[in-house]
Amino acid sequence: MGQGGGPAPAGLPAPPGTSFASDNAAGVLPEVIDALAAANHGSALAYGADPWTARAAALVGGVLGRPDAEVAFCWGGTGANVVGLQCLLRPWEAVICPDTAHIHVDECGAPERFTGCKLLAVPTPDGKLRPEQIEPFLAVVGDEHHVQPRVVSITQSTESGTLYRPEEVAGLAEVAHGNGLHLHLDGARLANAAAALGADVASFTADAGVDVLTFGATKAGAMYGEAVVFLRPELGRDVRFVRKQAAQLPSKMRFVAAQFEALLADGLWVRAAAHANAMAARLAERLAGAPGVVVTRRPEVNAVFVRLPSAAAVADLQAWSFVWAWDVARHEVRAMTSFATTDADVDAFAAGLAAIAARHL
Amino acid sequence: MGQGGGPAPAGLPAPPGTSFASDNAAGVLPEVIDALAAANHGSALAYGADPWTARAAALVGGVLGRPDAEVAFCWGGTGANVVGLQCLLRPWEAVICPDTAHIHVDECGAPERFTGCKLLAVPTPDGKLRPEQIEPFLAVVGDEHHVQPRVVSITQSTESGTLYRPEEVAGLAEVAHGNGLHLHLDGARLANAAAALGADVASFTADAGVDVLTFGATKAGAMYGEAVVFLRPELGRDVRFVRKQAAQLPSKMRFVAAQFEALLADGLWVRAAAHANAMAARLAERLAGAPGVVVTRRPEVNAVFVRLPSAAAVADLQAWSFVWAWDVARHEVRAMTSFATTDADVDAFAAGLAAIAARHL
Amino acid sequence: MGQGGGPAPAGLPAPPGTSFASDNAAGVLPEVIDALAAANHGSALAYGADPWTARAAALVGGVLGRPDAEVAFCWGGTGANVVGLQCLLRPWEAVICPDTAHIHVDECGAPERFTGCKLLAVPTPDGKLRPEQIEPFLAVVGDEHHVQPRVVSITQSTESGTLYRPEEVAGLAEVAHGNGLHLHLDGARLANAAAALGADVASFTADAGVDVLTFGATKAGAMYGEAVVFLRPELGRDVRFVRKQAAQLPSKMRFVAAQFEALLADGLWVRAAAHANAMAARLAERLAGAPGVVVTRRPEVNAVFVRLPSAAAVADLQAWSFVWAWDVARHEVRAMTSFATTDADVDAFAAGLAAIAARHL
Amino acid sequence: MGQGGGPAPAGLPAPPGTSFASDNAAGVLPEVIDALAAANHGSALAYGADPWTARAAALVGGVLGRPDAEVAFCWGGTGANVVGLQCLLRPWEAVICPDTAHIHVDECGAPERFTGCKLLAVPTPDGKLRPEQIEPFLAVVGDEHHVQPRVVSITQSTESGTLYRPEEVAGLAEVAHGNGLHLHLDGARLANAAAALGADVASFTADAGVDVLTFGATKAGAMYGEAVVFLRPELGRDVRFVRKQAAQLPSKMRFVAAQFEALLADGLWVRAAAHANAMAARLAERLAGAPGVVVTRRPEVNAVFVRLPSAAAVADLQAWSFVWAWDVARHEVRAMTSFATTDADVDAFAAGLAAIAARHL
Repeated sequence: MGQGGGPAPAGLPAPPGTSFASDNAAGVLPEVIDALAAANHGSALAYGADPWTARAAALVGGVLGRPDAEVAFCWGGTGANVVGLQCLLRPWEAVICPDTAHIHVDECGAPERFTGCKLLAVPTPDGKLRPEQIEPFLAVVGDEHHVQPRVVSITQSTESGTLYRPEEVAGLAEVAHGNGLHLHLDGARLANAAAALGADVASFTADAGVDVLTFGATKAGAMYGEAVVFLRPELGRDVRFVRKQAAQLPSKMRFVAAQFEALLADGLWVRAAAHANAMAARLAERLAGAPGVVVTRRPEVNAVFVRLPSAAAVADLQAWSFVWAWDVARHEVRAMTSFATTDADVDAFAAGLAAIAARHL
Repeated sequence: MGQGGGPAPAGLPAPPGTSFASDNAAGVLPEVIDALAAANHGSALAYGADPWTARAAALVGGVLGRPDAEVAFCWGGTGANVVGLQCLLRPWEAVICPDTAHIHVDECGAPERFTGCKLLAVPTPDGKLRPEQIEPFLAVVGDEHHVQPRVVSITQSTESGTLYRPEEVAGLAEVAHGNGLHLHLDGARLANAAAALGADVASFTADAGVDVLTFGATKAGAMYGEAVVFLRPELGRDVRFVRKQAAQLPSKMRFVAAQFEALLADGLWVRAAAHANAMAARLAERLAGAPGVVVTRRPEVNAVFVRLPSAAAVADLQAWSFVWAWDVARHEVRAMTSFATTDADVDAFAAGLAAIAARHL
Repeated sequence: MGQGGGPAPAGLPAPPGTSFASDNAAGVLPEVIDALAAANHGSALAYGADPWTARAAALVGGVLGRPDAEVAFCWGGTGANVVGLQCLLRPWEAVICPDTAHIHVDECGAPERFTGCKLLAVPTPDGKLRPEQIEPFLAVVGDEHHVQPRVVSITQSTESGTLYRPEEVAGLAEVAHGNGLHLHLDGARLANAAAALGADVASFTADAGVDVLTFGATKAGAMYGEAVVFLRPELGRDVRFVRKQAAQLPSKMRFVAAQFEALLADGLWVRAAAHANAMAARLAERLAGAPGVVVTRRPEVNAVFVRLPSAAAVADLQAWSFVWAWDVARHEVRAMTSFATTDADVDAFAAGLAAIAARHL
Repeated sequence: MGQGGGPAPAGLPAPPGTSFASDNAAGVLPEVIDALAAANHGSALAYGADPWTARAAALVGGVLGRPDAEVAFCWGGTGANVVGLQCLLRPWEAVICPDTAHIHVDECGAPERFTGCKLLAVPTPDGKLRPEQIEPFLAVVGDEHHVQPRVVSITQSTESGTLYRPEEVAGLAEVAHGNGLHLHLDGARLANAAAALGADVASFTADAGVDVLTFGATKAGAMYGEAVVFLRPELGRDVRFVRKQAAQLPSKMRFVAAQFEALLADGLWVRAAAHANAMAARLAERLAGAPGVVVTRRPEVNAVFVRLPSAAAVADLQAWSFVWAWDVARHEVRAMTSFATTDADVDAFAAGLAAIAARHL
C-alpha cells in the first residue's frame, strides 16, 4: 500500500488484504462491473438522452420519495457539490457550513472558485452544525458590505463519522427556510447514513426539508458518478447549463446511469454500506481495551478514529497498512471500512495496530 | 434512437443498428470493459497514487515521444481542455482559436468561466487556423486595455473533419513560440488523426511544437477519461491543483488509467480509429452520385458532411436514423462513424439516406 | 502631449492647446469643480446614505423619464458596464454586441472575467447592431452545450462615432424582448447622443425599450463617476451587492453625486456635448478638400475619422499632436473633441494635419 | 445624520457638527480641493500617461523608501486590495488573515470573487495576526486537496484600532518569506499608523518586509483614490492588466495623482492623521469615568470603542449622533475621528454619550 514513507516495522503480522485508508481505496461492487458490461450494447445518444439515464433518474427520485425531483448525474463528488451549490447561489451570497465540511477543507477551493461565493465555516465538536449556529450570520442580511447567507450545507454522514438524526436535519431546515436560506446536503456517504439510521432515506432528506443534495455513488461501490438531486425541482431549473459549464456532463452517460441502476434497484447500496458500517463497529470492538489504543468516538458509520501512543506509532502503522492522520497533534488516525472489507481484514488490522501501539507504550 | 421529433417516414428500410449521430453514441471497446473488470482487484489508494496510473502516464508519454511529459488524467473532454488551458493562462490573457473550435462553441463557455480569459475566434473555411491569422492579434501586446494573446488552440482532427499536416502544426508553433505564445491542441479525436495521417503521433504533436494537448480516449472507445499532457512539463507544474479545483480529479483513478492502458498498450486506439475512418470513407463512396445528395467534403477522418435537398429531407432522415444538422440553412448534416460502425451499418444508412433524398427531389 | 514616439517634425505650426486624442484627455467642467468644493461641507454618511446621492439619483431618473428607475453610481465606465451586465446575467448566459463594442475590445476582458459570461461579437460596418443580427444566436436556446443569449448590448453614441435613431433602438428592443433578452446600452457618450439627436434622452433609451444603461458623466465633463440605471427597477434588485463586490462602490459618494447634480441640473451636460459635437463638425469641415486627407465618415457626434496618405504621415501627426490610430492598415486616425475644445484648437489642428498630409503626398 | 431608526431622545444637547460614524463620513482636506482645481488645466492623456501621475508615483515610492516601487493608483480601497492580491495569487492559493480583516468581512466577498482564492481567517483578540498563527496552515502545502497558502495579509492600523510595531511586522514577514509566502498590508489607515508610531512609514512597511500594500488616501483626507504599491516591483509586473480588468483604472488619472501630491508633498497626510488620532485620545479621556461608559481599549489611532449599558442606550446614541455598533451583544459601539473632528465636536459627543449612558443605568 505504501505512502508510509518508510519500511514496515519487522515482526508484525501480514497487513490486511484491503486498505483502511479510505472507502475510495476499494474497487467497485461486482454488480457494478456487470452493469457496465451489460450497458455496453448498441448505440445511445450521448449526454443523457438515453433510456438508462431516464430510468436511473426515476430510481433516484423514488428512493428519495420525490418522483418529480430534478436529477443530474455528474462525474464526481466535488463536481456534484459545485453544481448543486451553483444552482442555489449568486456570487455575493454565502454558504454556512461546519469548518470540517468537505466543501470547505477538501476541495481545493473549488466551490469558491466556481461560484464566486464565500463559505462561512463554523467550528463544531463533531462535524454537525446546530440551528443556533446559523442565526449570528443573519445579522448582516441586507447590508451590501457583507456577503449574504443563502445556503446551509451539511454532510450526511459527516466527515467525523457522525450522523444527523432526521429531527436534527429538520431543525436546521426550519431555521434555514424561515430565513430564506436553502438546505444543501453533501451525501457522499448517504448510503452509510441510510444503513446506520435504518430508515427511509427520505426521512432525513426530503421529508426533513433538504432542498438539494449530492447523492453519492462512488463511495457506495460505484466506479464513478454522483447525482445532484433537486428535491424542489424549481431550484434545478438551470442545472443542465451549470453542469455543462462546470465540465461535469458525462458524454457516454448511460454508463453512469447503469451504475445507479445496479446500486439502487434492489437496495444493494444500503446493504453494501451496512456491511461497511458493521466492519467499523467490529474494528472498534476489536480495539477496545488494547493498551495504548483509544477509539475516540463510537463509530456511527464506517469510520473509526483511533489515537495511538505517539507520532512514531502512527508512522509505524502507516508504513505497515496506510491510514491518514486525522489529528497529527493528538496522534489520531482515521480508519475507513468499505463494502470490500472482510472480517479477516478487520481482525488483521486490529491485531497489527494493537501490536504497534504496544511497542510504543 | 429518436430525437427526430416525428415518426420515421413509411416505406424505408430498417435503420442501421448503430447510430451515426456521433462517435460518442457508441459504447466502449470490449477490451475496455475487460480492463475495467481486471482493474477491480484489491485496494488502491485514490487520486492517482496507484500503479495503474503510473503505468498509463508512462504509456501516454511514450506514445507522444516525450517520456518526461506531465500527464494528468481527467474526467472528460471539456474538463481536460479547461485544465490544460488554465495552466497556461492568467485571466487577462486570451486564446486564439478557429471559430468552430469546441472550446469556443460547444463547451457552454466553460473555458471563459473557469479561466476568466477571452477566446479570440477566427473564421476559417475548414476549421483549420493559419499562421497568418495569429499575427493581427499581436498588435495589442502590452496595451492594458486589451486582453493579451497567450495561447493558440487548435483541434486535431478538427470539428470539420479535417486534418493538420505535421508541417502545418509546426508553422503555427513557429509563429506562436516566436511571439511568446503557447500551442494547445484539443485531441478529442487524436486517434482518428493518428490513423489518418499514418504517422507517429509525435510527428504532429510533440515534434511539431505542441506544448499542451488533450489526449482523447472517450471517442476512441473508452468509457470515460481524457488526459491533459504537458509536453513541456514545466507548464504543468501546477496541474494537480488546477485539476482538483476544476473538479476533474477522479477518485478511483485506477479505472481511468486502466482504460488508457488497454487502448495504448498495443495500438488498439489507432486500429479502432482507422476502422472508424474507413467506415466514413465507405459511406462517402456509397453516397457518391445519389440524386439529391452532396457529400460536401471528402472525409479525412470519421465525419461525413452531407447536403440533402431540403429541410424536410433532413427531418425525415433524423426521424429515421438521427444525425445532427451541421448547417441548417444549407440542409447539411454530419454523420459520424466509430469503432462500432459496421459495413452493414454504412450500407443501410447510405441506402436510407439516398431513398429519403430521392423522395425530396 | 507626446506618445508619438519621436520628435515633432520641424516647420509645423504650434500644436493646438487641447488634445484631440480622446474626450477623456480633457479636464473637467468648471461647474464640476465648483460642485465638488460646495459638497465639501460637513459630514455625510458614506456609501450613498447622503442627501446628494438621493437628489442626484432622482435627477438621473427624471432625465430618463423614469422617476422610479434604480440608479447606482459607480467609479468608472468599465465598472459601470460590468455592474449593469452582472445584474442581468447568469454565468452560462451571453451578451450579443457589435465587435467594436467597448465591452468587447477595450475593457481587457473585464466583462467575461467578472460575469463569467461569453460575449458574442458581431461584425458591423458602422458599429451599429441590426435586429436581424440577433436572430441567428437564438437557434441554440435550450441547448446545454452552448451559452444562452440573454443580453443585447449597444453603445450610444457608438465607438465609430455613429448614432442609433430612437426607432433603431426600438427595433432591437423588440427582437430582444420578444425572445426573452434584455437590452443594455453603454452610454459613455450619452450626452453627445442626446445633443446630436436633439431629442429627449428618454426617446432613445427608456421609451425605446432599453432595460439597463450606463449613464456616462466622465466624458461629458465630470472628473469621475458613472451611473448604472435600471429603467426596469426589478432588474437592479441586487445591484447594491453586485456593485460592492465589483469594487465599484465609492465611499465618499456625495462627491460623485454632486457632479451629476452639476451636470444634469440645468442641461449643462447636453450643452457641453453639443459644443463638442460642433467642434467635430467644424474639424471635418476644415479638413474637407485638403490634399491627402480623407474624412472617412461625416461626424455625427464628437469623433472625426481621418485617413492620411501613409503610416509616416500618421507618425508625424502623432508626434506633433497625438491622436490614436483607428485602422493602422488604412492610415486612419480618430480625432476626438470635447467640451474644452475651442474654435482655435480646431483650426490649429486642421491646419497642422493638412500640412503633414501635404508633405506625405 | 440619522440611520438611528428613531427620533433622537429629548433633552440632550445638540449633537456634534461632525459625524463620529466613520472617518469616511468626513469630507476632504481643503488642500485636496485646491489640488483638484489646480490640476484642471489643459489636456492630459488619460489612464496615467500624464505628468501628475509620474510625480505622485515617485512621491509614494519615496515616502516608503523604495524609489523603484511599482505604484498603481486605483479608485478605492476594496479595489486596491483586490488588485494587489490578484497580482500575488493563482486561484488555488489562499490568503491567511485575521478574521476581522476588511478583506474578509467588509468587502462583500470581492477578494474571493475576483481572485478565486480562499481566505483563511484566524481569530485574534485585537485584530493582529501573530507569526505562530501562520504555521498550522503550512501543513497542507503540496497537497492538491487543499488550497495552498501564498499570502499573509494584515491591516495597519487594524480594524480594531490597534497597531503593529515594526518588529511585529518583521516577525510576520520572516515566517511568511521563510515559507514562500508574500506579506500584504492593507493600509487604508496607513496615515494614522504613521502618525501614531511617530516613525518613518518605511520602518513598518518596506523595511519590515512588506511586499505589497494598499496605500490609503481616502480616509486620510482625499476625495477618492488609493494606491497599490509593490515594494518588490517584480510582483507588480502584470498590475496594469490586473487593474484594468478589475475596473480599477481611472481615466482622468491626473486627478487621483494630484490628490496624492497634495497629501504627501509636505507631510499633510500624517499631520491630518495625527490630529484625528489626538481627537480619539481626547474622546477616550473625556469619557473616562462616565457612569455606565466603558472605553474598552485605549485608542492607539482614531477609533474609540465604547460599551454602553444596554441596547437601548446604543439606539438612543445612534438616534442622536450615529455611530456603528461594533459588538451588538456587548452594547459596544465604535466612534471614529478624522482630520475634520474638532475639540468641540469631541466634547459635545462625549457629553451626549455620557448623558445617554446615565439615563440607561
